[in-house]
Amino acid sequence: MATDYRAPAGSEIAALDGARMIADGIPYPDWAEASERLKQGADWFDVWAGNGRRYEALGDAEIAAGNTLTGAEQLWLACINFHYAQFLWFHDPARRVEGQKRKVELYARAAQHLRPPSERVDIPFGELSIPAYLRLPAGPAPAGGHPCLIVIGGLESTKEESYLFENMCLERGMATFAFDGPGQGEMFFDVGLAPDFERYASAVVDYLEGRPEVDNDRFGVLGRSLGGYYAVRVAACEPRLKACVSWGACFDLSDFDQMPPATKAGFLYVTGIEDPAAAREHLRTALDLRDVAGRLEQPTYVLHGRHDEIFPMRQVELLQEHATNAPLEVVVEEHGNHCAHNLAHIVRPRMADWIARQLGAGA
Amino acid sequence: MATDYRAPAGSEIAALDGARMIADGIPYPDWAEASERLKQGADWFDVWAGNGRRYEALGDAEIAAGNTLTGAEQLWLACINFHYAQFLWFHDPARRVEGQKRKVELYARAAQHLRPPSERVDIPFGELSIPAYLRLPAGPAPAGGHPCLIVIGGLESTKEESYLFENMCLERGMATFAFDGPGQGEMFFDVGLAPDFERYASAVVDYLEGRPEVDNDRFGVLGRSLGGYYAVRVAACEPRLKACVSWGACFDLSDFDQMPPATKAGFLYVTGIEDPAAAREHLRTALDLRDVAGRLEQPTYVLHGRHDEIFPMRQVELLQEHATNAPLEVVVEEHGNHCAHNLAHIVRPRMADWIARQLGAGA
Repeated sequence: MATDYRAPAGSEIAALDGARMIADGIPYPDWAEASERLKQGADWFDVWAGNGRRYEALGDAEIAAGNTLTGAEQLWLACINFHYAQFLWFHDPARRVEGQKRKVELYARAAQHLRPPSERVDIPFGELSIPAYLRLPAGPAPAGGHPCLIVIGGLESTKEESYLFENMCLERGMATFAFDGPGQGEMFFDVGLAPDFERYASAVVDYLEGRPEVDNDRFGVLGRSLGGYYAVRVAACEPRLKACVSWGACFDLSDFDQMPPATKAGFLYVTGIEDPAAAREHLRTALDLRDVAGRLEQPTYVLHGRHDEIFPMRQVELLQEHATNAPLEVVVEEHGNHCAHNLAHIVRPRMADWIARQLGAGA
Repeated sequence: MATDYRAPAGSEIAALDGARMIADGIPYPDWAEASERLKQGADWFDVWAGNGRRYEALGDAEIAAGNTLTGAEQLWLACINFHYAQFLWFHDPARRVEGQKRKVELYARAAQHLRPPSERVDIPFGELSIPAYLRLPAGPAPAGGHPCLIVIGGLESTKEESYLFENMCLERGMATFAFDGPGQGEMFFDVGLAPDFERYASAVVDYLEGRPEVDNDRFGVLGRSLGGYYAVRVAACEPRLKACVSWGACFDLSDFDQMPPATKAGFLYVTGIEDPAAAREHLRTALDLRDVAGRLEQPTYVLHGRHDEIFPMRQVELLQEHATNAPLEVVVEEHGNHCAHNLAHIVRPRMADWIARQLGAGA
């Protein structure tokens, strides 16, 4: 990647969104300390990577001492810190790749010790494979197997980051299956953002149909941020999915020019295309729900923050105009920001409850 | 209570300890917004009580809609907000009592819907009764019953506040039993801080011996802040307790004069004695481990922050000097504050692991 997709000065401090980072797992005291250091000029990557290494050492020591749950959660915390280290780091591919690889391997080491554990799965897909993690609720499966929620990340978020949200779903009786699609996480090393995300999702459903622990008649899909686009696309193309959650509506990229500069840089980067104009054109055609929105028929929950700084309300309206064959339940949080992360403690359990009800979980 | 135990100006803002409040359950976005409002002069009680009422309405609506876990956690959040409303509110007994009563009744409404549920217990104790909550780990009990950790609050903290810490213990295979002793929570309405906390704890153990779900040979005790004093006192006097955690060491009140003014006001208040000089003398004699420390023989874990602003390191040293018959495991967090709340995400799972190992939980 020769092009310097540098986020403009100030992007890093602007990205210090406490509500989002803390809801996703960064401990508040670390966030507060990092904020101070960053405002005094410390290097973004170094700050988070340093915290990541600290939690890695703590986690390894706890696991060695037999405190496996504590250790696993610390390794997961190390993973999340490396995620934030490489977040926005488009101008320095070597460190970005280092951060991604550390994020992946730290989660892999935590996975078996998480509670419930997280099972690594690699689904053959042509010459590639789709990396994923399956988690099953504690306790015996109901007749027919657990309902299962397929979880999709966004522009930057990946299968490793949904741990806390997965826990809410697992508590409510759903299995979770998080994977990286084209342009995301591990998959990005093989394939950039692509128009056919639904093909990957269908391969996931094929795979899950072979797993006896889950119920083939109770699959749902949820996607966050740009994943809110993918979830709708995937549900529209895949009738085996019985319900859909778009956690942040995105219909197309017609509002690209108004997005924050760091988000624009991220979009261009994940295409894997060097020339910015070509990347831009690829995004415009690759991300558009017009061709499939009319086929969406499943119950679909759309959560959107009125003050979303990335996807404006117009994106919700476009979805409503085109997805006319689906029962849409549109929830607009009047004081919400992007994905209503500033109301995470209220909206996240609510989404988990909605999907649990659609899939008949815990009934 | 005629005496005006007013915390000095500025105490409220000084009490805005984000690490502690967020670790105990206040959502970060609420904490950040409240901080802004308080710095602009908003009334402390009104801010937190207002948030409490907001979560109460949300929780009631979720429970009515059948989303019982989500609703219960919101009612619990309402309870914690009312806790903070009445926290430090010694100069206005009417509102303090209102806050306490709301805190108690909100938790009571959440209890049955928490996961695992929390069972209200009232243990007869002379003419009084000891209010408490029992929670059992999910899944079947091991032969002999679950190990059980008795959880004691502090100067201001009560049986309602340990929910998140209890969850860590429950995940690790221990039942939890949290109660209010003299001077604490509901019990304060009947009896102020008293020198015989161990009599209440023994009544608790008597009660638990009659519960078939718990193992009579695997009781432990943990106390936080002033509860770190009570836990040691109780363990020293009660051989049926097999292990002890002092989450913040306190040996006596010889460092009273150096405590923060709001803490001093709180100590005087919970005696229930109007005359400050008499209250002070009562505290001096009621809180002293010299008479029992030599009888402590159980494995005891002492967690202390080097920079504890309430109980200085001298309190740890006094405990070490006098508790010479117990295997003490003293962990001093070099960068820790009171109870190492600024390191909650690291030290709390560690305490839960230690006590789980002592009680053979999850083995």
